Amino acid sequence: MKNSNGFISFVSSGPGDPELLTLRAVKRLQAADVVLYDDLASGPVLGQAREGATLISVGKRAGRPSAKQETVNALLVEHGQAGRRVVRLKSGDAGIFGRLEEELQAVRDAGLPYEIVPGVPSANAAAAVAGLPLTRRLTSRRVQFLTGADVTGGLPQDQNWAALADPFATTVVFMGQRTFPAMVELLVKNGLAPDTPALLAEAVGHPHQRLVRSTVTALAALLQAEGPSKHPALIIYGPLAKGDEQP
Amino acid sequence: MKNSNGFISFVSSGPGDPELLTLRAVKRLQAADVVLYDDLASGPVLGQAREGATLISVGKRAGRPSAKQETVNALLVEHGQAGRRVVRLKSGDAGIFGRLEEELQAVRDAGLPYEIVPGVPSANAAAAVAGLPLTRRLTSRRVQFLTGADVTGGLPQDQNWAALADPFATTVVFMGQRTFPAMVELLVKNGLAPDTPALLAEAVGHPHQRLVRSTVTALAALLQAEGPSKHPALIIYGPLAKGDEQP
Repeated sequence: MKNSNGFISFVSSGPGDPELLTLRAVKRLQAADVVLYDDLASGPVLGQAREGATLISVGKRAGRPSAKQETVNALLVEHGQAGRRVVRLKSGDAGIFGRLEEELQAVRDAGLPYEIVPGVPSANAAAAVAGLPLTRRLTSRRVQFLTGADVTGGLPQDQNWAALADPFATTVVFMGQRTFPAMVELLVKNGLAPDTPALLAEAVGHPHQRLVRSTVTALAALLQAEGPSKHPALIIYGPLAKGDEQP
Repeated sequence: MKNSNGFISFVSSGPGDPELLTLRAVKRLQAADVVLYDDLASGPVLGQAREGATLISVGKRAGRPSAKQETVNALLVEHGQAGRRVVRLKSGDAGIFGRLEEELQAVRDAGLPYEIVPGVPSANAAAAVAGLPLTRRLTSRRVQFLTGADVTGGLPQDQNWAALADPFATTVVFMGQRTFPAMVELLVKNGLAPDTPALLAEAVGHPHQRLVRSTVTALAALLQAEGPSKHPALIIYGPLAKGDEQP
């Protein structure tokens, strides 16, 4: 029999630092019967979940092909139909590169009520840590987020390269550690200055946090030489990406 | 005499709903000696400030020319140098269209320590309320934020129109109510389909909240006919901007 109390909250967990959870996210975690989480959103954030809540790792990691989207969808619907308060925790902001669309659709198709709790995108957290704004009057009036990896892990080719090579924008590349060297080649071919400032922000808010201030070409060379780290990282490039040494 | 305990926190207040404050933002507000706030970030959020904190409205509103940037800068420095814990509250995320750069510079020039507390951008909050993700695999891999008004309130002309007319991106226009009709003319000239879905999200999270689901051309016509409302509003357009009727 279908229980009508089931409710799905798609909750943004922010970059991983529990102090960057919103009050509403904490409220939902503290009321949850079931929490479905990815590796990226795990750790201290889960400490906010109600004692006694069932925590289920659904093991997706950014940049890797996921065979399990159907499993996640099925779990959401199953627990919702059983009348449970389900929190689907998503790292950063749930609406940005989190495959929210596919899970939303499953929940809608099942006729379950839901909500989306927005959060702090990893991009904004990385910029804050580096002491840089994402926009500036006149010189950087557009900010854009894109993913550096398609479902196969490769660089998406059919992109708007003119948009990405625009010297008056701030660009944030998610999941781009592996593909950035190839991307920079295309950016420079499309007119981006090779010495455009670039910032690598790795594991923001975590003990392993690392910030590298560089240029697009030097950062591409570094990533090529080092290979991608095992920590999630963002790359920010554009006139503002120099940031400040301080905070 | 300069007191060395002064500290400036640039705190993102999110879209205005106090439940969308981060735990860190609440902590900073509760420890503040002085809070400098804009009209847009006011109201219930200020209720979190420590009793006894000095609340100073600096009266800036999005889309209007501000003669007072120097005054804000001076206040930040003055209170910081007096050894106070200063919270500079900024609506949405402080790094996005908040003129953070100018205030950061003043604080750096004065040699004062500071931090940036990132928050929920209004764009992400608006999308969440409308039940729409900002990205989708394959069909919407880029999301971009831009301002629809320059310092004079007019539409910035020297923009990357190809980037903005890209049918595979989600675009969020901040402070664009007045200029959207002129902007749509240019977008369509640059190849954007006139029936591209568009969403107007007004006063998100406030009692006056209004969502209008439309197309770029129909929304432009509506804004032209109605004139801009007195509430802050965002416009989201692109293939995903249709959203869902539900939540």
